[in-house]
Amino acid sequence: MNLKEMVGIEAAGYVKDGMVVGLGTGSTAYYMIEELGRRVKEEQLSIIGVPTSFASKKQAESLGIPVRTIDEVDVVDLTIDGADEISSDYHGIKGGGAALLFEKIVATYSKKVLWIVDESKMVDTLGAFPLPVEVIPYGSQQVFNLFEKKGYQPKLRTAEDGTPVKTDCHNYIIDLHLQSITDPEALAADLDSTVGVVEHGLFLDMVHTIIVGQPDGPAASHVRE
Amino acid sequence: MNLKEMVGIEAAGYVKDGMVVGLGTGSTAYYMIEELGRRVKEEQLSIIGVPTSFASKKQAESLGIPVRTIDEVDVVDLTIDGADEISSDYHGIKGGGAALLFEKIVATYSKKVLWIVDESKMVDTLGAFPLPVEVIPYGSQQVFNLFEKKGYQPKLRTAEDGTPVKTDCHNYIIDLHLQSITDPEALAADLDSTVGVVEHGLFLDMVHTIIVGQPDGPAASHVRE
Repeated sequence: MNLKEMVGIEAAGYVKDGMVVGLGTGSTAYYMIEELGRRVKEEQLSIIGVPTSFASKKQAESLGIPVRTIDEVDVVDLTIDGADEISSDYHGIKGGGAALLFEKIVATYSKKVLWIVDESKMVDTLGAFPLPVEVIPYGSQQVFNLFEKKGYQPKLRTAEDGTPVKTDCHNYIIDLHLQSITDPEALAADLDSTVGVVEHGLFLDMVHTIIVGQPDGPAASHVRE
Repeated sequence: MNLKEMVGIEAAGYVKDGMVVGLGTGSTAYYMIEELGRRVKEEQLSIIGVPTSFASKKQAESLGIPVRTIDEVDVVDLTIDGADEISSDYHGIKGGGAALLFEKIVATYSKKVLWIVDESKMVDTLGAFPLPVEVIPYGSQQVFNLFEKKGYQPKLRTAEDGTPVKTDCHNYIIDLHLQSITDPEALAADLDSTVGVVEHGLFLDMVHTIIVGQPDGPAASHVRE
């Protein structure tokens, strides 16, 4: 069993009967959703899943997990998702899989957020992982030029055929190769106020519990109430 | 000639040969684009238009004005657009026509911005006009609930058939019936950082010149360099 599968299964154990569960996106969340599907089938676990991407929706439905949109539920009890980087003060970068917008919307309207990662994602300071920024296609070249002027080392994310990657909302992703993000709050405020930016991959003060996959077993850290 | 037509024609006079011109959207901008079309045809004015909506693009093309997207030009020399409200300290509310996102993108990347309004749009304090906020459809009910909790008096903008109005980017518009916006900067920062909000109709510190239509003729005010 690889580390991602290990934490995915461990995290699914946090889900209790009757919960509304935010279903993350990506290779680690994949295993968590698989395990939830197994529990729904074999243990008659009764939950409602709120997917953060079309991919997770499809996976959940194929496993028989009932799904709703974030607007069809009052509140999400627990969202379980991966992360691309987690700093020592528990801020995160997400969006490597281009699903950051829906992931952030679901996490924002969740009572509790649980991140599941393998140990390679734990870092001192964020920024070695390129920060994904979702931008409106119209004006994206202007936003790119602005990022370049600010020294943000932008790179438009492209598919194998060279065309821009499109998110579930038909936007583009510009990855900022910052190396080290010394003041994530200031950067988040700057990106929030940039016209043409829909959302960015800085998830600050958002996570409650982190489960880290390590060769000798998963380790859970409780971050905040 | 009505006041909107009067200022539309007056504003078109600010356009010089060789300029890249941002073309606003709405009933006042309509007359400005018509006049630019006349000048292109009759005076051989050579310009490039950067439309802020599909409607303005269509109108410009039908008049023989060459158009480019904001990403196909280096910079826009002058953007001429209407406004729904302008305060005594020259902040504005835009988005009554649901085109605020592209309007804001084009204005942001313009050297100069000129607003054209009839005198009814000049107010002391912003907020009698409902503030349009463009939101991602996914999560829009959660954002609506949040706005309600904050006392922002939100109302989802709907078409005649009762379905939500969709912007050119396929988003929804939530209008905030605030009555009076005492601190526009704080409100803008709050909306900028709200997950699910794409853009809002507060245009702060953005306009350079205002032309106000009055019964005895248009009056221009120079606001900033």
